[in-house]
Amino acid sequence: MIRFCELATSFRDGRDSPRAVLERCIDAVETREPEVRAFVTLDVEGARRAADGASARWREGRPRSPVDGCPFGVKDIIETADLPTQMNSPIFEGWRSGRDAACVRALRRGGAVLLGKTVTTEFAAGRSGPTVHPLDRTRTPGGSSSGSAAAVAAGMVPIALGSQAGGSTIRPASYCGIVGYKPTVGTFSMAGVHTFGPTLDHVGILGSGLNEVWSIARQLDLDADTPGVRRLPGSGHALPPSTPPSRLIHLHTAGWGELDDGSIAAFEALVERLRAAGVPVSTRDDPRVAGLESTLDAGVGSRLDIMAWEMRWPFEEYVDHHGPKVGEIVHGYVRHARTLAPADYENALGTRDRARAEVDRFRATADGFITFASSGPAPVGLDHTGSRTFLNYWSWLGLPSFSLPLMTVGGLPVGLQLIGFDGSDDRLAGLARWLIETLG
Amino acid sequence: MIRFCELATSFRDGRDSPRAVLERCIDAVETREPEVRAFVTLDVEGARRAADGASARWREGRPRSPVDGCPFGVKDIIETADLPTQMNSPIFEGWRSGRDAACVRALRRGGAVLLGKTVTTEFAAGRSGPTVHPLDRTRTPGGSSSGSAAAVAAGMVPIALGSQAGGSTIRPASYCGIVGYKPTVGTFSMAGVHTFGPTLDHVGILGSGLNEVWSIARQLDLDADTPGVRRLPGSGHALPPSTPPSRLIHLHTAGWGELDDGSIAAFEALVERLRAAGVPVSTRDDPRVAGLESTLDAGVGSRLDIMAWEMRWPFEEYVDHHGPKVGEIVHGYVRHARTLAPADYENALGTRDRARAEVDRFRATADGFITFASSGPAPVGLDHTGSRTFLNYWSWLGLPSFSLPLMTVGGLPVGLQLIGFDGSDDRLAGLARWLIETLG
Repeated sequence: MIRFCELATSFRDGRDSPRAVLERCIDAVETREPEVRAFVTLDVEGARRAADGASARWREGRPRSPVDGCPFGVKDIIETADLPTQMNSPIFEGWRSGRDAACVRALRRGGAVLLGKTVTTEFAAGRSGPTVHPLDRTRTPGGSSSGSAAAVAAGMVPIALGSQAGGSTIRPASYCGIVGYKPTVGTFSMAGVHTFGPTLDHVGILGSGLNEVWSIARQLDLDADTPGVRRLPGSGHALPPSTPPSRLIHLHTAGWGELDDGSIAAFEALVERLRAAGVPVSTRDDPRVAGLESTLDAGVGSRLDIMAWEMRWPFEEYVDHHGPKVGEIVHGYVRHARTLAPADYENALGTRDRARAEVDRFRATADGFITFASSGPAPVGLDHTGSRTFLNYWSWLGLPSFSLPLMTVGGLPVGLQLIGFDGSDDRLAGLARWLIETLG
Repeated sequence: MIRFCELATSFRDGRDSPRAVLERCIDAVETREPEVRAFVTLDVEGARRAADGASARWREGRPRSPVDGCPFGVKDIIETADLPTQMNSPIFEGWRSGRDAACVRALRRGGAVLLGKTVTTEFAAGRSGPTVHPLDRTRTPGGSSSGSAAAVAAGMVPIALGSQAGGSTIRPASYCGIVGYKPTVGTFSMAGVHTFGPTLDHVGILGSGLNEVWSIARQLDLDADTPGVRRLPGSGHALPPSTPPSRLIHLHTAGWGELDDGSIAAFEALVERLRAAGVPVSTRDDPRVAGLESTLDAGVGSRLDIMAWEMRWPFEEYVDHHGPKVGEIVHGYVRHARTLAPADYENALGTRDRARAEVDRFRATADGFITFASSGPAPVGLDHTGSRTFLNYWSWLGLPSFSLPLMTVGGLPVGLQLIGFDGSDDRLAGLARWLIETLG
């Protein structure tokens, strides 16, 4: 994998350049893409032109941002001016919006180099795409940001944009052994990203390392073009200082029953190392933690009501006007929505508000939560992108979360999921840094 | 003009039918459209099929809503599944979204019959379209919802959807002698309507009468598909009872200097009739009213900063990627945005908050405000859609407003603008009804 942010000095003194990085990416595309199938479309020549501009700026000592010249992929539900945006749906085959989404615009203004559009499940919700796991072609790379995760893991780009309303960024990051980040809900503009639900949608970032992910997050934030978007706390492009947690809470929750023994052993070993490093880790032995786990497991099912209700527009339109072109999973969501009344949605919002308040009460005594970023390593099979059980809680509650590549099970990566409090994204990045430095 | 809501009994007993109404609309299109040019595209056969369904439902005594079968036009910045949405921009020539905007969906679910897409200025912001005033082809119909207003006034549809971020619904309603309504900001989903700015965008309604406008408003509200949208106060489809105002405030403001003597005389005559009907009318003789006028006139210029800042996405994208296809007015807004810093936007929001609070203090002593809905009758010339001076305040502040066709100046219509308080839309409709019944 390409660690773009480590190359800044080489870019300045001419030993390396964004153009040379891009050529290494293109080499990786030529070698790996025929098998991995992470991309829907590529713009190699456009990327070369952009990378040449960035190379010159670095040599002249005036890069536009720390990610000037960084090649990136974009999930194909996010609009791009010069490539189609096809949503993995025949309804949008060849569709071009003629404009960049606000998030793509922000990265290009920082000089980042769009290499191509990456495979998504249908509308980030339905049918899987053709992408395979870069380490094992019989396994899913995870979804719905399948191509974004696989492209990063296969060294084809250092960074890719994804999205998450359930587990769509954190799960593929976990399976593919890269860093994934989903911010506090409302951070990073969704303008020009195909909508799913106004209270569940998140732009996600998948990258080769924490530095890369955070630099991209800051570029999205500093150059966001749309009012009404929540800003990241803190300032500047730099990754926050490495910060040892004062206390972490180890959540089991329902997904624990889905894990293999090897995954559990790997996680327990991580917890032991944390404790050995002096970090207190609370578990469900503490009745408050057990109570929170019950609240989360009892409430998270209502996420489906919220999602189905919020996605009625435009998904009912697709079902009504283009029914046979819409996959069964999306049809199922729309059918579920049609069983709901406005009061069901209101009730689901109330359940969520109460769960958010209960999570927030831990803010005084802990820095965050740790658990799995997926139910073990990537499963065999390409028809399904894996379990979302460990992920749904945090999309539902809109809390910031990282997947950190800190476990290996049966030769495959599994992520540690680190979850923070509402709006604590920068402190969480400092904790993530410490965890990688200490346990990586 | 066609008063659809007055025909319900005839639809039930078979003396008339929505299909017959549609044929009268189509006759009007054939007669008037070659000169008026209100429509960009028409779907006559689709409309006939939909109207036949509605006709059967009325005869069977089970209409889907009071507007079942009502033909309507849709401003061409609002997405429709079966007709292109072209924004009066060459960038979007032939563009199809394949889906109905949430507002169009809501009307069709109530059985309303889409007849065609109506002319807008470029992105509801720039270059004028070809539409002429139905009463005088040398005059503008007003804009940016030019075709929607002209189509209603020429009897081609009883209702049309528009939008407003400045004066785009109320001004053409005033010029064309029809009823216009812009709700409290945040009411009616903007999903699938080309965005302008998240705090200034409104879906507007233009109709042949107040009943038609309010029935459509209720249908938009009852069937809105998008969470996060503010609901209309009150319930049911019926127009609120006719309510005499306890007090109205007559605002002069800066636009008074743009008026011809005939318009001023017509307005003064209306105010005299109001007073004769027992309605107290305060003016700037009251120092509080004079103070409010000063606040409005001093602050409304900051609306441009809000608009320019909010429209950066996607309009900077259009300028950057398709510059020569973008009109000079839009280029000017983007240039203005580029002179602004985030602090300018924050300052503009603060100015607006203070003005909103000052308006709201009148809630205790008055029912609403009256002034012109345009700076007199439609001016000669098609290059410009008229002055927005009397309109900008209420788009800026997000307050509900009606244009009521209560004046005639030199043989041309001029609207009385009735403005209410935040969220008072249903009470305002009751006042509007009384004004029409008393002064119409």
